[in-house]
Amino acid sequence: MNAAIITIGDEILIGQIVDTNSAWIASQLALAGYNIIEIRSVSDSQNHIHSALKAFEGNTDLVVLTGGLGPTRDDTTRGALASYFGGTLKENPEVLHHIYTLFAARGMKISETNRLQAVVPDSCEILKNRSGTAPGMLFRKSGTIFVSLPGVPYELKDIFTEELIPKLADIFHGPLIVHRTVMTQGIPESYLAAKIQDWELSLPPNVKLAYLPRPGIVRLRLTASGKDRNSLAAELAQLIDKLLKIIPDEVFATEDIGLEARCGQLLLDHHKTVATAESCTGGSISSAITSVPGSSAYYKGSVIAYDNSVKVKELGVTPEMLNNSGAVSREVAEQMANAVRIKMDTDFGVAVTGVAGPGGGSEAKPVGYTWIAVASAKNCTSRNFLFGEHRGRNVEKSVQAALNMLRIKILEY
Amino acid sequence: MNAAIITIGDEILIGQIVDTNSAWIASQLALAGYNIIEIRSVSDSQNHIHSALKAFEGNTDLVVLTGGLGPTRDDTTRGALASYFGGTLKENPEVLHHIYTLFAARGMKISETNRLQAVVPDSCEILKNRSGTAPGMLFRKSGTIFVSLPGVPYELKDIFTEELIPKLADIFHGPLIVHRTVMTQGIPESYLAAKIQDWELSLPPNVKLAYLPRPGIVRLRLTASGKDRNSLAAELAQLIDKLLKIIPDEVFATEDIGLEARCGQLLLDHHKTVATAESCTGGSISSAITSVPGSSAYYKGSVIAYDNSVKVKELGVTPEMLNNSGAVSREVAEQMANAVRIKMDTDFGVAVTGVAGPGGGSEAKPVGYTWIAVASAKNCTSRNFLFGEHRGRNVEKSVQAALNMLRIKILEY
Repeated sequence: MNAAIITIGDEILIGQIVDTNSAWIASQLALAGYNIIEIRSVSDSQNHIHSALKAFEGNTDLVVLTGGLGPTRDDTTRGALASYFGGTLKENPEVLHHIYTLFAARGMKISETNRLQAVVPDSCEILKNRSGTAPGMLFRKSGTIFVSLPGVPYELKDIFTEELIPKLADIFHGPLIVHRTVMTQGIPESYLAAKIQDWELSLPPNVKLAYLPRPGIVRLRLTASGKDRNSLAAELAQLIDKLLKIIPDEVFATEDIGLEARCGQLLLDHHKTVATAESCTGGSISSAITSVPGSSAYYKGSVIAYDNSVKVKELGVTPEMLNNSGAVSREVAEQMANAVRIKMDTDFGVAVTGVAGPGGGSEAKPVGYTWIAVASAKNCTSRNFLFGEHRGRNVEKSVQAALNMLRIKILEY
Repeated sequence: MNAAIITIGDEILIGQIVDTNSAWIASQLALAGYNIIEIRSVSDSQNHIHSALKAFEGNTDLVVLTGGLGPTRDDTTRGALASYFGGTLKENPEVLHHIYTLFAARGMKISETNRLQAVVPDSCEILKNRSGTAPGMLFRKSGTIFVSLPGVPYELKDIFTEELIPKLADIFHGPLIVHRTVMTQGIPESYLAAKIQDWELSLPPNVKLAYLPRPGIVRLRLTASGKDRNSLAAELAQLIDKLLKIIPDEVFATEDIGLEARCGQLLLDHHKTVATAESCTGGSISSAITSVPGSSAYYKGSVIAYDNSVKVKELGVTPEMLNNSGAVSREVAEQMANAVRIKMDTDFGVAVTGVAGPGGGSEAKPVGYTWIAVASAKNCTSRNFLFGEHRGRNVEKSVQAALNMLRIKILEY
């Protein structure tokens, strides 16, 4: 089944707000088995709304419209819908009763503007809005179902989940779509593609693969279409098992979560704790780890040793090490990781030292040159990386690489 | 002039990623004087791409396409563009040379997949991608300019700003537009609007004001249109002078820079240094400060004392303070700020302790309750804040408030 999404509102067209509603609706429709062919944002004018409706009428199974239903601008969208689908704007007694109940529960009086929310085209079926005043509206024309929902996110989500999805299940009976996401770290998109080429070429025709890169991370999204949820899930699980044999170290999760959350899960599962010592990443590893709610259960703290004097005074790096090996070296990274682990009394210590740029590079150690070490009571693993020229991305790639090394160390422990 | 935006990629249509590129492009086009008539997201298929192009050809001045240009096989944009605009796909020697240079600088070898990025329709003009491999492409058809840009945000922004905007200024000849940005901290958008209402109402008709809020910060963007760059610049400078008299403490910069950069300028100018001690912000202040190139000249480091044991052992917080005042208190914040300043031998020490949430709140100290202290050799200033319920935004607001307190302390010193 095909679906399209139309968002209405000038604030999206001038870039003043990011359209997050569309992404949410799209993800929910995809889960419900719809193939979304287009998302379109148009301005709050009758002409633009009408031509968007026209574009999908008769060739699309479902069109979800959102926005343009607030109490100050109901004239445009509601009027545009009434003139497009026919019928007249009338006060709907059921909706009016709901608005009265809602205001009474809050101890508030209903205003004329609020009362206007009950005025809807009499050609629509009402979708009840439990958490707000503007109802959802469902229209049918030329074999296409059109649904208009308010743009307030929690109202939209409530109507969509509680009212629309059950109604659509009654109306349509189509192919089912199932997604799985595999998270990889430490291998650029083009290298990854080369490494898993045979596996990708052998994918069955009902399964599609997409590469979704971020600095240091590539997400692989598998989409399977078919008739039975269980057999599709089993098919994807089997394909992911095969993939894991090809890139076992690079895959850090088979669900859509970040490395900081994955490390958090593992530390909790294994009852272990961690501390960090950061130079070039300047607190970004710590910041990533503590972005996870509940991280205080396994994260104790960090020494940000941006200046060499702090490396010496707080982390036992010696002036000799700095002279002989340099601040960006295996020796210093390992010393930092071991020292912070002991200082903060944790199971693991993670340390990074590198040349973030744009200054500070040399021929032997150019911008992007980085050492990362992860220490436990048993041993210390360190690795050398050469990232790129961009300061911010070097930091982000260092964070991801360090967290992946921590993840592997926890699993080995 | 009219413009439309087309984003290409299944990941937007299934809601796996939120389309932030469109909002950015829309805001930039609006600034450049374009009226955006539509934003459309279509799937990575030749048919859908072609019908979107067709919809705007001949009736729109400018169409910006983004996405669908990655090196892997889910991207079909390039072929779709070649077949729509004519010409053949050929390896462009200039682009290939650029890709080689980019990879050589990272000490990496170019793969067959990377090399494919240099294959573009010979009917396009190339827009150079300084920070990535996929170039921008400009096509002309039926009086419409079509521009295709990669979907990676930093590459997109770089090509858009450095290559496309100057090119469009050559092609079209609209009125001259000059922007200035005023940065404010610590005053919510609605309060700010009330405070500067008279000033805003007195703006001349050729000057527009936009409020651009982020957690803890509101940017005020002034856009003037006219014929002469110097007189527009003078007009804006005069208006900003008037504004500074109304909100002197809230404005931290009259150019579009962050507080971390502003503090960096001031520390360099005054030859001063700073260290931080962070609890609930978990390294985010340090991470912000060190995001500025050259920050090693004034930033020494941080103790991230996420666990109370680290506050005691490393920052001289006593068990009595924790018992009597609690970890989130003026006493502990000031102790942390003073201790880290002495420990790292700096002019200023900045400390934050708070309840980031979602857990850990109490009736007396709910989620969002935060103490921030800034210490110098002379004195220590501390302030109490009650931010909101959202963990990520509480951290971000704490970072901005702490940096603004540091800025004021440097100016007072």
